[in-house]
Amino acid sequence: MSKIHINKVQIEQLEKPKRVNLINSLGGFKSVALVGTSDENGNENLAIFSSFFHIGANPPLIGMIFRPSPPERDTLFNILETGFYTINHVNESIYKQAHQTSARYDKEISEFEMTNLNSEYKNDFHAPFVAESNIQLGIEFKEKIDISINNTVMIVGEIVQIYIPENCLYDDGFIDLEKANTITCAGLDSYHKTIQLDRLSYAKPDKEITSLLKV
Amino acid sequence: MSKIHINKVQIEQLEKPKRVNLINSLGGFKSVALVGTSDENGNENLAIFSSFFHIGANPPLIGMIFRPSPPERDTLFNILETGFYTINHVNESIYKQAHQTSARYDKEISEFEMTNLNSEYKNDFHAPFVAESNIQLGIEFKEKIDISINNTVMIVGEIVQIYIPENCLYDDGFIDLEKANTITCAGLDSYHKTIQLDRLSYAKPDKEITSLLKV
Repeated sequence: MSKIHINKVQIEQLEKPKRVNLINSLGGFKSVALVGTSDENGNENLAIFSSFFHIGANPPLIGMIFRPSPPERDTLFNILETGFYTINHVNESIYKQAHQTSARYDKEISEFEMTNLNSEYKNDFHAPFVAESNIQLGIEFKEKIDISINNTVMIVGEIVQIYIPENCLYDDGFIDLEKANTITCAGLDSYHKTIQLDRLSYAKPDKEITSLLKV
Repeated sequence: MSKIHINKVQIEQLEKPKRVNLINSLGGFKSVALVGTSDENGNENLAIFSSFFHIGANPPLIGMIFRPSPPERDTLFNILETGFYTINHVNESIYKQAHQTSARYDKEISEFEMTNLNSEYKNDFHAPFVAESNIQLGIEFKEKIDISINNTVMIVGEIVQIYIPENCLYDDGFIDLEKANTITCAGLDSYHKTIQLDRLSYAKPDKEITSLLKV
């Protein structure tokens, strides 16, 4: 494929909307999920994010990035106020509603109501889950790390509650995300379902990798 | 879908391989790319990662997480020693070779050689690109942030060189990752291609979202 080269100066010279689309596309496909929170008075908030990343399995930690911009402030405020939030995988049936949560609603308006997604409370967890989501995680806030270079904030949370469809969990702990209808996103606005190519064996020097899928 | 519930105590009690698979699956689909580096003497290293995340578009910043474990130490060492690395999207033609780079080769062995992927140097950038990758990024190290809770390290880098296939860049800056054959991964070992569902318009209160795709 014949390639375009864009260097640092050219990146800086791009007009803002184009640069935002370009840079957001460069990271590749991303996980996309709805973060559910409520404040101390029980006012609910729901917001779509695509900046999650694995930090460790023991303890089970997941990170996410918050930009210093208005639409995400309610989520961050609620997490810091209450210490709890939920991460709910987006699937093919709800991705348009999920995308709609990114609209800048007034603070007192619940995105659950505006998008017809249902909140679900269970096992005494403070934050609301999204009933329509097949994979739901209850997260306990652990650490806030400031990224001073551009005033973003990283939140580290521990996964303390897991809900997954029975038939999606394999004996070895692997979750079949496709069976759970989880989708992925690209850039700011593109949503994609997936087709599994393979699961590969643990790589070792001088040993050929093999497929873990049963033929 | 009927769901299994796994709580904090049950997560802790899982045997290690099962917990690792489970927690790595929970984050959803992830971007997967090869990080190319070389030390001051030009010894090359190539390693697969799936912990990238967008931090900001101006300046264009991308983050990644390093675990404090042996296989990734060469990459981190080289980044800190030289200040430069490359991020190369994995595509359907090279994902098995990409996976093989995670084998624990001795330090003096180049994963490029062992996997038959070709290094490519261009525009005086210090670190090697992967010739077989369609989307290639040259990154300048900016900041190292220690995540003390589990001794992981976050590296923040600025995107200073971009190479993308000509026909994959849209006028609005969006990159068609599917046309570039970029794939996504799940858990530790599952690779997936994608099918675009839609691109959605910028969400606003009281306005229905529409498709950005031309019919």
